[in-house]
Amino acid sequence: MANSKYSYVKNFELPDPVLPDTFMLFRLDGHSFHRFTDVHGFEKPNDFRALELMDHAARSVMEEYPDIVLAFGESDEYSFLLKRSTSLYNRRESKIVSTLTSLFTSCYVLYWPKYFPNKPLQYPPSFDGRIVPYPAEKHIRDYFAWRQADTHVNNLYNATFWALVQQGGQTTAEAHATLRGTFSKDKHEILYSRFKINYNQLDARYRKGSILLREEEPENKKASKKAKPATRIVLLHCDIIKDDFWNERPTLLAD
Amino acid sequence: MANSKYSYVKNFELPDPVLPDTFMLFRLDGHSFHRFTDVHGFEKPNDFRALELMDHAARSVMEEYPDIVLAFGESDEYSFLLKRSTSLYNRRESKIVSTLTSLFTSCYVLYWPKYFPNKPLQYPPSFDGRIVPYPAEKHIRDYFAWRQADTHVNNLYNATFWALVQQGGQTTAEAHATLRGTFSKDKHEILYSRFKINYNQLDARYRKGSILLREEEPENKKASKKAKPATRIVLLHCDIIKDDFWNERPTLLAD
Amino acid sequence: MANSKYSYVKNFELPDPVLPDTFMLFRLDGHSFHRFTDVHGFEKPNDFRALELMDHAARSVMEEYPDIVLAFGESDEYSFLLKRSTSLYNRRESKIVSTLTSLFTSCYVLYWPKYFPNKPLQYPPSFDGRIVPYPAEKHIRDYFAWRQADTHVNNLYNATFWALVQQGGQTTAEAHATLRGTFSKDKHEILYSRFKINYNQLDARYRKGSILLREEEPENKKASKKAKPATRIVLLHCDIIKDDFWNERPTLLAD
Amino acid sequence: MANSKYSYVKNFELPDPVLPDTFMLFRLDGHSFHRFTDVHGFEKPNDFRALELMDHAARSVMEEYPDIVLAFGESDEYSFLLKRSTSLYNRRESKIVSTLTSLFTSCYVLYWPKYFPNKPLQYPPSFDGRIVPYPAEKHIRDYFAWRQADTHVNNLYNATFWALVQQGGQTTAEAHATLRGTFSKDKHEILYSRFKINYNQLDARYRKGSILLREEEPENKKASKKAKPATRIVLLHCDIIKDDFWNERPTLLAD
Repeated sequence: MANSKYSYVKNFELPDPVLPDTFMLFRLDGHSFHRFTDVHGFEKPNDFRALELMDHAARSVMEEYPDIVLAFGESDEYSFLLKRSTSLYNRRESKIVSTLTSLFTSCYVLYWPKYFPNKPLQYPPSFDGRIVPYPAEKHIRDYFAWRQADTHVNNLYNATFWALVQQGGQTTAEAHATLRGTFSKDKHEILYSRFKINYNQLDARYRKGSILLREEEPENKKASKKAKPATRIVLLHCDIIKDDFWNERPTLLAD
Repeated sequence: MANSKYSYVKNFELPDPVLPDTFMLFRLDGHSFHRFTDVHGFEKPNDFRALELMDHAARSVMEEYPDIVLAFGESDEYSFLLKRSTSLYNRRESKIVSTLTSLFTSCYVLYWPKYFPNKPLQYPPSFDGRIVPYPAEKHIRDYFAWRQADTHVNNLYNATFWALVQQGGQTTAEAHATLRGTFSKDKHEILYSRFKINYNQLDARYRKGSILLREEEPENKKASKKAKPATRIVLLHCDIIKDDFWNERPTLLAD
Repeated sequence: MANSKYSYVKNFELPDPVLPDTFMLFRLDGHSFHRFTDVHGFEKPNDFRALELMDHAARSVMEEYPDIVLAFGESDEYSFLLKRSTSLYNRRESKIVSTLTSLFTSCYVLYWPKYFPNKPLQYPPSFDGRIVPYPAEKHIRDYFAWRQADTHVNNLYNATFWALVQQGGQTTAEAHATLRGTFSKDKHEILYSRFKINYNQLDARYRKGSILLREEEPENKKASKKAKPATRIVLLHCDIIKDDFWNERPTLLAD
Repeated sequence: MANSKYSYVKNFELPDPVLPDTFMLFRLDGHSFHRFTDVHGFEKPNDFRALELMDHAARSVMEEYPDIVLAFGESDEYSFLLKRSTSLYNRRESKIVSTLTSLFTSCYVLYWPKYFPNKPLQYPPSFDGRIVPYPAEKHIRDYFAWRQADTHVNNLYNATFWALVQQGGQTTAEAHATLRGTFSKDKHEILYSRFKINYNQLDARYRKGSILLREEEPENKKASKKAKPATRIVLLHCDIIKDDFWNERPTLLAD
């Protein structure tokens, strides 16, 4: 067959398995989302609809891929944890990275009109993704702590910055200057004393990010032990850094 | 800062550069498109609108990434050639694979209604992607020959198969049985003698696939030598296996 | 400088770090040692001097590389465990593999005359090496169990095989035939009933392989807590599969 | 079998093939040879016996591995070119790197007494190795040019430096100071005017390094075309940067 004389080119596709029995952390980020949020008029400091759309897309990815046991989202990024025993696509890195990034993107575009009914997409948004393998549970806990600490730091800054601009009448340059060198407690103080904003009462979605995980269906707990329990995906905006989150879910990292 | 005690987790992100000075071939394929085409009622053996949508998405990707010098599409797959000197994203494999797959997917979903105005997407389609590095021009020529030979073999089979079913009244099982063990010339003969179809007069898009490449704007050829010539992306359905295609474009693989 | 116009070729040296915080298992094997043992007249089923030479070379490698915490040898192979926190050569795989293989080889050739004073090397022996990263302690325990179980299976077979040949007067073909399909207990029985050999009383070096590990110097245990304790490398031929070995050394895999 | 329950640990051995149809450049370097040359009293600026030993070891490696078509040595390093079509060890990187480094080391130690009959090895020398894949002939030419240019620069510096010390009575600190900021022509001038040394008349081995390549046996050229011609390995100290070397050997990089 004519084909066979060329098919040697397949030999250049090198194997790219992720090390067995490591957790795979898949993270994606919006590509050039600074421009994207400007063009599409996202609200500052947080656009509720945009975050809901991210959560929706992430939930769809989790529904399609049962080996994802936990996800965390903030701003235009989302992290997904695949259980360490997963054999998804034989653990081929490019296959997993590309397929998950593609499905998330597809959901983001498809569900966009639900969250922005009056604002059609001006151009196609895109995301980049990567997989990071982690050997131990400790790394996974620290990974999610890293992201949630980042959410906190960014959100406190942004909340204060945009209060100075939107309510305080500062220019963005002035607001940056006001915040230069300030500590966390200074920003809390600015928010409260100047704008009567108690930071800790802001929407937990903004302060804590979005956590998606599977829970067993309540009715299912009574069902036969033999049947694999049905699960549903729940969305939380709670602390993921302290021990409580993990102690309450002792099987989360078990597989 | 709270963040810094966790940021060591970034050290697990290993470098993944593609070998310098090799051509990068990026190919993507529809994920579970057998089901997707069924659910969305694609016409057999070829759905013209669906192929046009693929071409549109591919063209958008090429417009965004000037280092893509050539692309080839058939069915639910598309191959993109990045010039060997590209330093896109510092040649990081995951970054390139995920970003290009994401942008293509985004275009596919965003432009879907243009080609299927009466058929809304029932669920989010996705694609998987991979990069294959090729050291030499010969490999690139053979790669595209491999894909176009594949197009030919598949299309001849499918054209004959669906003629037997749609016009010949065979079941799909009967049609498969009819074609078992047949050679290329047998299928031509079946098409012509039973259905008055001259295979070589079928739409070249189906027989040859879609080729996208950059051409200099005609008016631009007169412009100052110093200015980098403006280019436009053209769509062809011609032979890419024989020497002519390559001889006519001596600079295509030059960089 | 003339040099600089060519130095771009360094860019083709791609990074090859081993995933952080994983144990590195470095194993080397004799290259074509079947022929090597024939040419150099190794005794069957085990050549004591050759095993001592392997142990000597391995000990020298451990002395040079303090991050090796454990080693196991049998026949013409040796495995070395680098602690998971090692930053030896920035965890570059080729650098570690090549350097350790080279040093072992160098010792093997240099110390050869000590163990084979009347048998000069007929040609240069060589070894191949590889690094396997393991995420968890369980994998390390199972790795060493895998090697020691292999030692047992091979040694029981070889002990019986060579008894049949050397004492029983069988040809090698006959001895293979005798052993085909036999179980472990059958081999014990053959050894005992035909040759009065109690397998369990054979030299533990043959049955258990060689284990090298660091122990604190006894006198050092009284020394100041602040000083890093001096250690010496000890050679054992004990069971490494059961829990005892590991329970007695709770810090062995700690770093 | 006891073994099988542990043998899953083999799954952590990841594939590491070098990209097909690329040249593989294997380079090894002496490990901590500054100390090694001091302890073993190597002559400065060049020790003829040590270079001959390197050449001997390299020649032995080439004899064992017919897919090595060219080698270049200087000081304590050697580079070996494997032909691009080689399928040695299925192109597995660790296997090739470790085996070649091991064999070279083995030869170095084994043949040491031939070159240093009165100076036994004080401790085992070792080497590190790496493989760099190159896509094109141009890269290979530039690679060897890079090494030979390096040889020239180092040797000119060292020749002048040691003349200042050994014949000029400078301390090493003074000699370094004398040479700081000098150009090539300044060093030639120092050598000639102060020490009557015409640099270009120094032994070509020092100035050009050592080149090993295969040549057909002269008598063999008349032999049957069908027989694969017998070759021998020749040692040259000629220019490898200019075109002549390559033009005279048009088939050197052909496979």
